[in-house]
Amino acid sequence: MGNKIRTAVVGGTGYTGVELLRLLLPHPNVELVAITGRSEAGKPVSSIYPSLSGHTDLVFSRPDELDWSTIDVAFLATPNGVAMRMAKELVEAGVRIIDLSADFRLKDTAAYEQWYGEPHLAPSLLENAVYGLCEWEADAVKSAQIVANPGCYPTAVQLALIPLIKEGLVAGSIIADCKSGVSGAGRGANVGTLLCEASDTFKAYGASGHRHLPEIRQGLDSYDEGEHLKDIVFTPHLTPMIRGIHATLHIETEATIEQVRQCLERAYADQPFVQLLSDGALPETRSVKSSNHCQIGVVKPYGATKRLILCSVIDNLMKGAAGQAVQNFNLMHDLPMQSGLAMLPLVP
Amino acid sequence: MGNKIRTAVVGGTGYTGVELLRLLLPHPNVELVAITGRSEAGKPVSSIYPSLSGHTDLVFSRPDELDWSTIDVAFLATPNGVAMRMAKELVEAGVRIIDLSADFRLKDTAAYEQWYGEPHLAPSLLENAVYGLCEWEADAVKSAQIVANPGCYPTAVQLALIPLIKEGLVAGSIIADCKSGVSGAGRGANVGTLLCEASDTFKAYGASGHRHLPEIRQGLDSYDEGEHLKDIVFTPHLTPMIRGIHATLHIETEATIEQVRQCLERAYADQPFVQLLSDGALPETRSVKSSNHCQIGVVKPYGATKRLILCSVIDNLMKGAAGQAVQNFNLMHDLPMQSGLAMLPLVP
Amino acid sequence: MGNKIRTAVVGGTGYTGVELLRLLLPHPNVELVAITGRSEAGKPVSSIYPSLSGHTDLVFSRPDELDWSTIDVAFLATPNGVAMRMAKELVEAGVRIIDLSADFRLKDTAAYEQWYGEPHLAPSLLENAVYGLCEWEADAVKSAQIVANPGCYPTAVQLALIPLIKEGLVAGSIIADCKSGVSGAGRGANVGTLLCEASDTFKAYGASGHRHLPEIRQGLDSYDEGEHLKDIVFTPHLTPMIRGIHATLHIETEATIEQVRQCLERAYADQPFVQLLSDGALPETRSVKSSNHCQIGVVKPYGATKRLILCSVIDNLMKGAAGQAVQNFNLMHDLPMQSGLAMLPLVP
Amino acid sequence: MGNKIRTAVVGGTGYTGVELLRLLLPHPNVELVAITGRSEAGKPVSSIYPSLSGHTDLVFSRPDELDWSTIDVAFLATPNGVAMRMAKELVEAGVRIIDLSADFRLKDTAAYEQWYGEPHLAPSLLENAVYGLCEWEADAVKSAQIVANPGCYPTAVQLALIPLIKEGLVAGSIIADCKSGVSGAGRGANVGTLLCEASDTFKAYGASGHRHLPEIRQGLDSYDEGEHLKDIVFTPHLTPMIRGIHATLHIETEATIEQVRQCLERAYADQPFVQLLSDGALPETRSVKSSNHCQIGVVKPYGATKRLILCSVIDNLMKGAAGQAVQNFNLMHDLPMQSGLAMLPLVP
Repeated sequence: MGNKIRTAVVGGTGYTGVELLRLLLPHPNVELVAITGRSEAGKPVSSIYPSLSGHTDLVFSRPDELDWSTIDVAFLATPNGVAMRMAKELVEAGVRIIDLSADFRLKDTAAYEQWYGEPHLAPSLLENAVYGLCEWEADAVKSAQIVANPGCYPTAVQLALIPLIKEGLVAGSIIADCKSGVSGAGRGANVGTLLCEASDTFKAYGASGHRHLPEIRQGLDSYDEGEHLKDIVFTPHLTPMIRGIHATLHIETEATIEQVRQCLERAYADQPFVQLLSDGALPETRSVKSSNHCQIGVVKPYGATKRLILCSVIDNLMKGAAGQAVQNFNLMHDLPMQSGLAMLPLVP
Repeated sequence: MGNKIRTAVVGGTGYTGVELLRLLLPHPNVELVAITGRSEAGKPVSSIYPSLSGHTDLVFSRPDELDWSTIDVAFLATPNGVAMRMAKELVEAGVRIIDLSADFRLKDTAAYEQWYGEPHLAPSLLENAVYGLCEWEADAVKSAQIVANPGCYPTAVQLALIPLIKEGLVAGSIIADCKSGVSGAGRGANVGTLLCEASDTFKAYGASGHRHLPEIRQGLDSYDEGEHLKDIVFTPHLTPMIRGIHATLHIETEATIEQVRQCLERAYADQPFVQLLSDGALPETRSVKSSNHCQIGVVKPYGATKRLILCSVIDNLMKGAAGQAVQNFNLMHDLPMQSGLAMLPLVP
Repeated sequence: MGNKIRTAVVGGTGYTGVELLRLLLPHPNVELVAITGRSEAGKPVSSIYPSLSGHTDLVFSRPDELDWSTIDVAFLATPNGVAMRMAKELVEAGVRIIDLSADFRLKDTAAYEQWYGEPHLAPSLLENAVYGLCEWEADAVKSAQIVANPGCYPTAVQLALIPLIKEGLVAGSIIADCKSGVSGAGRGANVGTLLCEASDTFKAYGASGHRHLPEIRQGLDSYDEGEHLKDIVFTPHLTPMIRGIHATLHIETEATIEQVRQCLERAYADQPFVQLLSDGALPETRSVKSSNHCQIGVVKPYGATKRLILCSVIDNLMKGAAGQAVQNFNLMHDLPMQSGLAMLPLVP
Repeated sequence: MGNKIRTAVVGGTGYTGVELLRLLLPHPNVELVAITGRSEAGKPVSSIYPSLSGHTDLVFSRPDELDWSTIDVAFLATPNGVAMRMAKELVEAGVRIIDLSADFRLKDTAAYEQWYGEPHLAPSLLENAVYGLCEWEADAVKSAQIVANPGCYPTAVQLALIPLIKEGLVAGSIIADCKSGVSGAGRGANVGTLLCEASDTFKAYGASGHRHLPEIRQGLDSYDEGEHLKDIVFTPHLTPMIRGIHATLHIETEATIEQVRQCLERAYADQPFVQLLSDGALPETRSVKSSNHCQIGVVKPYGATKRLILCSVIDNLMKGAAGQAVQNFNLMHDLPMQSGLAMLPLVP
């Protein structure tokens, strides 16, 4: 196993953690050497996740037990605020970091403090961190020391809108009416995400301000050369399903549906994970369940002028978290983009 | 039982039909004399709906077997196109009609033909039919011969928006991003609504044109004296739950959130079934499940100017169908508004 | 409201509590004077349960704030161990108690200690407490000071089996393979009952010993005059739905299916809440959802001799908890059995 | 692609069909040359299954259009009764058959006629067909012309019980109380499996006789040398989830739990797809979701003598259908057992 990449997962007890294990254990270029989980330290991974019985003998360890000098890459699947505290030590030990938390996503430290409730503690590292939206930042990711893996909503929204914004096709306001499965809320014990509270119901939340809004705004603005964008309204909703993000993007545009489709086709012609649906078709989240794909459809709303709707779907734990993290890992190591990510979606 | 109202349900095998039975069987002023269902004629209701075992001895009959002269009121829970064919005979027999289909909702026969695919066959009856959005048309309903019971989406959207439009508080475009539980698609055998197709997934549908759009447009326009409304974008989505409509209404407005709340409070102060949530709270569909209520919340999206979001939820089979139909029945007979509708929502 | 029964709900923040509110608020003979909930004290009930907005102005209070001398009846929806600590004070104040916890169910204090982990603290009260399985203990309930409301599984199992055991129709072993919706696990924050953990999966639990086994055993033994019963195997499973208990009861018997049906018919001829399905039909949990009914079906397994299967379904929060508690309340006050319990099941 | 195995899927529009595609498209030794689906002939596979967009250009064809002489292996995912009509032509063309229907499972043609409603039309082929329960029939499968892929329930039941029966550890009656996800009922348009009918409910079905009983009986009897088995009661239930079989197997035995565990360990020591859970642990269906695994747990029920319970879980579309079919394919072609089947279960 000499030339495999020695990899650690930090914070592996949550849904992003177990999804990383599902992807990394069979990955041909990965030697998974450690998985940390403070609360479960000492327990076999398979005792927490019986689905991994027989597939790994790994035992959860404490993060401070790791000898970082023996590790090439660390996936940080930790709560917000942890990665910026750990990063310096890892960087100094030569570890490349793929951070699945929000710590290195916002370039503006004031915005970080506003939305995450404490000052950013590693601003110098932040400066060189790369926002790992793979389809748009591949070159920067290749050589990055720290990759900030994008949020789930921002991935679904940006993949659909960046091509249009880059070509100046969007003007005025964007209404991003977004829906998420419950796994986006994590594996913490919480009344609100109990089956009896979150199934058989639907609601909006965070409509007066959600942390993914500044991330979306930062991403779209960076491609908006003509400064055509005005308001972005981001309204997340909780949907009674386990996985999936569905972004319904209401845009104002002078472009025809055909022009928008061509713009998206140009942008993603060589990208295996972004699929433009055939004319008139609308995506559904299950069509990408368990896979790293993003599917996008475009439609013209009846009777409205200068308006189009894009629908963009991803699996929030895959393209919205662990899958995109592995895609970044592949980019960082010049591996084929689909290494460890070739599985087809699970339907039904 | 002499002074009870002799009532028939026509087309009782679908979800709207069984919901009507749930409401009408215990209704203190109703004598349920017949329920028709062509495909199930001759079978006891309880053989199709074991939940009604012990609560009724009714047997499904054929509609042509009924002696309309003995019936006071008919609820028509039939597919679109049936009511306009039956109505003349019933009206001539003195039967008052509460039609839960779309046949008598659109006043414009050209629009009916466009959206429902055939000419309207009873235009003279259509003229005098009353659109039964109870909170806004109570007076007209009281004396109506034919009440057109509103559609589920239109009920949720109009209850939230009519007060604002009436007072000129909405300008420009409305984005009605709406979500429905699967029961809205009915009880017909259909691949798309199988559990294995419709659970654990989320999708938009009918985004390029849905029959409820002209109904919403007609309703809002009738209160839009200043003609402030421009585009209405109506985007329905299918959500993996049984019951519930959630309308996320993105509006352009000069008004403050407080002004909008006061406007809604004025409109519904005396209405038992419409509830304005306390400041900042957003509704969820389960809070009205199995009841005839509509809950509305208002929120200001972060960072957007001159924009507000209203969220409106109903149970699509209750306030969006059978419940509102019984409310109309109560209005037509000068009964207390809550007769047969006093049940509290089922949570969890 | 002078002649209404002054009623308190203690421990009203869980699912049994909110279900009691749904039933007691519209109950014609109830004046709900207090609801306690230590963790939510001071908050309006409607802030925790928006489904009750507009239906009550009650505010959660602390149990020690109540003046028991002004209260006629208390429903205790508290965790196990609380009722036996509170009961003395209430009894001395003249309050009649309906205890929905397990504290007064097991007559054998040694068994209580074995299964609930601490000695019973009120054995003298236990002696006179009545096990409130309404269809079988109505007379005792009428005059009881303390009613022990039966557990959910025990209700479903005993209603189906007591008639057979009483008539000596069951011999040998009983396999009670039972399935419960997730609400049976309560509203506590718990990883195992998160939507993402408990939906789209099925499992057995507590198969090596569950607290409801001694309760079932005690109940069945008390009717087993000939001591025909040998083993009772009780195997609970968790099912991905909110409400419902389904008991699949595999019995050894010399009786024919027809004899068993007649035995059940005799037992429940005058009982409005227990329904025997017509020949060959098997019940499903949704047919009793939100109602206080129990439905029972009987079937002969193919190719097996001297064996029958009974399937018994209830709504665990209704007939298995709050509904049966209200039924006991009605019995205790000589009210019509269906007062406050007349709602029909919610389908779909 | 010269040395890949030329493979056809017949009847590919159902859930077993799309699951076969999910497995066969990335299978390193498979060239998928055709997929038939009468009702969808001419349509791209990705138009029916958008999850396969970008992964295949296959178009559904009619079965009579295929040139069988160019095909090495056919997976028949057709309704019962089709395979026995097609098999002769395929066998004569040299095609090896993996039949996922029931046509070649029962060796007794009288039993086939009794349970499937028509005489068996290919009794001579039936004689040489191999029942493809991979872990027990590997040698016979290797050289089989026709493999009868086992049913979903029979797979879960037999994998847990055959080792015990083979060693004479089971005596008397077996109660196989089994639960299935809804995908087992197929993708046909059917009221009973609509989301609104099959979610949020639980029921037994086919309790008076189900086609999988004779299959289970045949399998267990063939290993029951001492003829210890008496009754087998098989009671299937429908559970509100998409995938999964959970078999709760109540057995009478003189053996200790430890002896049973050792027996299972001996049987499956070298089998990658069958996993015995550690002591006391019970499996849940999601731990094998989307994978080809079977997990088995053993537990002693409290207070019962000479009784044990085994719980066995599989994914009905994988180990219970398409996964086991591919495992049979691998056996037939001397490929590594896990070719195309190495994916880890999807949790959550």
